[in-house]
Amino acid sequence: IQTKLPKVGTTIFTVMSQLAAEHQAVNLGQGFPDFDGPQALRDALAAAMNAGRNQYAPMTGIPALRQQIARKTQALYGHAVDADTDVTVTSGATEALFAAIAAVVRGGDEVIVLDPCYDSYEPAIELNGARAVHVPLNLAADFAVDWQRVRDAITPATRMIIVNTPHNPCGAVFSAADLDALAELTRDTGIFVLSDEVYEHIVFDGAAHQSVLRHPELAARSFVVSSFGKTYHCTGWKVGYCIAPPALSAEFRKVHQYLTFCTFSPAQWALADVLEHLPSHYLDLPAFYQAKRDRFRALLAGSKFRLLPVAGAYFQVVDYSALSDRGDIEFSQWLVREAGVAAIPVSAFYETPPRDARLIRFCFAKTDGVLEQAAERLQRL
Amino acid sequence: IQTKLPKVGTTIFTVMSQLAAEHQAVNLGQGFPDFDGPQALRDALAAAMNAGRNQYAPMTGIPALRQQIARKTQALYGHAVDADTDVTVTSGATEALFAAIAAVVRGGDEVIVLDPCYDSYEPAIELNGARAVHVPLNLAADFAVDWQRVRDAITPATRMIIVNTPHNPCGAVFSAADLDALAELTRDTGIFVLSDEVYEHIVFDGAAHQSVLRHPELAARSFVVSSFGKTYHCTGWKVGYCIAPPALSAEFRKVHQYLTFCTFSPAQWALADVLEHLPSHYLDLPAFYQAKRDRFRALLAGSKFRLLPVAGAYFQVVDYSALSDRGDIEFSQWLVREAGVAAIPVSAFYETPPRDARLIRFCFAKTDGVLEQAAERLQRL
Ligand SMILES: CSCCC(=O)C(=O)O
Ligand SMILES: CSCCC(=O)C(=O)O
Repeated sequence: IQTKLPKVGTTIFTVMSQLAAEHQAVNLGQGFPDFDGPQALRDALAAAMNAGRNQYAPMTGIPALRQQIARKTQALYGHAVDADTDVTVTSGATEALFAAIAAVVRGGDEVIVLDPCYDSYEPAIELNGARAVHVPLNLAADFAVDWQRVRDAITPATRMIIVNTPHNPCGAVFSAADLDALAELTRDTGIFVLSDEVYEHIVFDGAAHQSVLRHPELAARSFVVSSFGKTYHCTGWKVGYCIAPPALSAEFRKVHQYLTFCTFSPAQWALADVLEHLPSHYLDLPAFYQAKRDRFRALLAGSKFRLLPVAGAYFQVVDYSALSDRGDIEFSQWLVREAGVAAIPVSAFYETPPRDARLIRFCFAKTDGVLEQAAERLQRL
Repeated sequence: IQTKLPKVGTTIFTVMSQLAAEHQAVNLGQGFPDFDGPQALRDALAAAMNAGRNQYAPMTGIPALRQQIARKTQALYGHAVDADTDVTVTSGATEALFAAIAAVVRGGDEVIVLDPCYDSYEPAIELNGARAVHVPLNLAADFAVDWQRVRDAITPATRMIIVNTPHNPCGAVFSAADLDALAELTRDTGIFVLSDEVYEHIVFDGAAHQSVLRHPELAARSFVVSSFGKTYHCTGWKVGYCIAPPALSAEFRKVHQYLTFCTFSPAQWALADVLEHLPSHYLDLPAFYQAKRDRFRALLAGSKFRLLPVAGAYFQVVDYSALSDRGDIEFSQWLVREAGVAAIPVSAFYETPPRDARLIRFCFAKTDGVLEQAAERLQRL
């Protein structure tokens, strides 16, 4: 069979998790916490299951969950969200990203992505017959977006720009000025924005998450994707959602209903319950993860790794050039075998990795003991 | 926005479920049971959750579940299934159907579907830039496949044929001769088969399910899709799977990993557990649903509805032409309002509904009391 996705192999996350397991390494590669969310969430799921909530949810998601999503979003970002017309629950953010792209991107279109970027964007674009146009973030400026380069990449074929804040893998976050720049350069162009905000509740140092929903003009042409996996420490639950204005949501739903139709019902009931009764959980998340970030950075202080700044999400990118001049894929493999610590090579998120960059990503969403064990091994190098 | 799916509205299942709720009708429309599966399944899910199985499952599904699927399939259909290379767990059969189509169908291709057919096939084909070619089943012969008509529909552009046994909405099932015919007409053509077998455990009157996996030649070019929603009375759990030979599975997985990446982990552990320890559940399913079929048919005996035969799945198609000569959409709406019973118009499954056909579909996966209440209302007409 001739493949439709010649560039695609197994994702780097799967590869590194398998390698970590083989070598019994500390796995700071694939991004997932090694601890659970609140017990109340699991109790609510069990209660929903035992109350017979086991049949199809509505295609758009159960109303109680959509209402809680709308309420939370409105409270945090000041954007009026209609639970009926603007919110669609999906089987994880990955499905939402695919559905948003499939909803509006056509054969021959171009979609601008900012490298490094999450690995699902480009295959989703290609499966819809379009082409990803890669614009690099400014590595020298803490991975800020160079909006002039984005502007230069726009052509009449540009249908969508995909942004991600807080950023995986870099930990950069948007400022209000970024939203203005994005609004300005997409004004009157017919270009849609797809904003991947799955780390929306993990922003540090007192900053506020700059959701594109804070910007009314942008919100009117954006699909905003988020997820509960990162917020409730349950990446395996695969409940995400998309917020978009009614006309965009209508197209999104046409695709969603034939991709998965609906999402595991008991989890929807459980999440609606904790969103309503335990808002402290997500409100406490910045402090919780900031403590982990600070601990991990302190543990690596004095090591051969240079720590890049982390303003959000739960990843620490480090420069290992003082240790090795191997490429980052080779270095990551060596690190698993020799140091017993798994990381993700940052080049995996690039079409054309920056020359001479020697960057790998550690996930610090781990219990303190695991972070200490990893740091001890990394300090030995 | 110009839509990419001009033919698509809200699915008939959503429309009829909403209408049923509005009119407090007995809902025999959308296909889902109004009872739960074994308590052991929910207990196993709660145990998995509370044992910390809440992070990403492997992209292909957890090994324990893939092994149970392989074992069960091999035991039932005599086809050797490799859990590692041939089985991929998906977020429901809907995702599996989409992924199989997206894996091999390209712009300009044609895909043959047999009408009436499930409503997700055609949008999935169109989103992949291809065209659905509709071949009607033979209504006059209990919805048998007219293989000569299928043969006549094959062109050099034909990439795939989608079949469905047991059949939704018709309740027809394949015979071994159907498998032979399908094998013969796709021999040396490069045409793939996508076989939707989600009702595999609901086959009546002592017949054996004729999975395409029983036919080694066919199995070598087929994606076989099934699901646990129908088998374990949990349509809202959305755990399905695809079985395909290694080369096809490799392409399938490339798409799947960017559609949803993986599926709700605790349900995978729970399903692996009951497949291993409670095989009696699915082995008892034919008798369980045959009793419901027979009860529902007995309850409707003497009514104005003519009952078509039902060899599998949990739907009863009836001809209402003795009652009304309205079209079936209009009749279904009238039935909700006037009789308080929701059904699905069979024309919703057709590109070109057969002229003068007056058919609606009732779901009989309901508790006996509900079937009795529905029948009482239908008998009054
Ligand atoms: C879906 S596996 C990838 C998890 C993740 O978001 C990451 O590690 O970047
Ligand atoms: C996914 S909703 C449709 C359920 C179903 O399979 C049917 O009613 O035919």
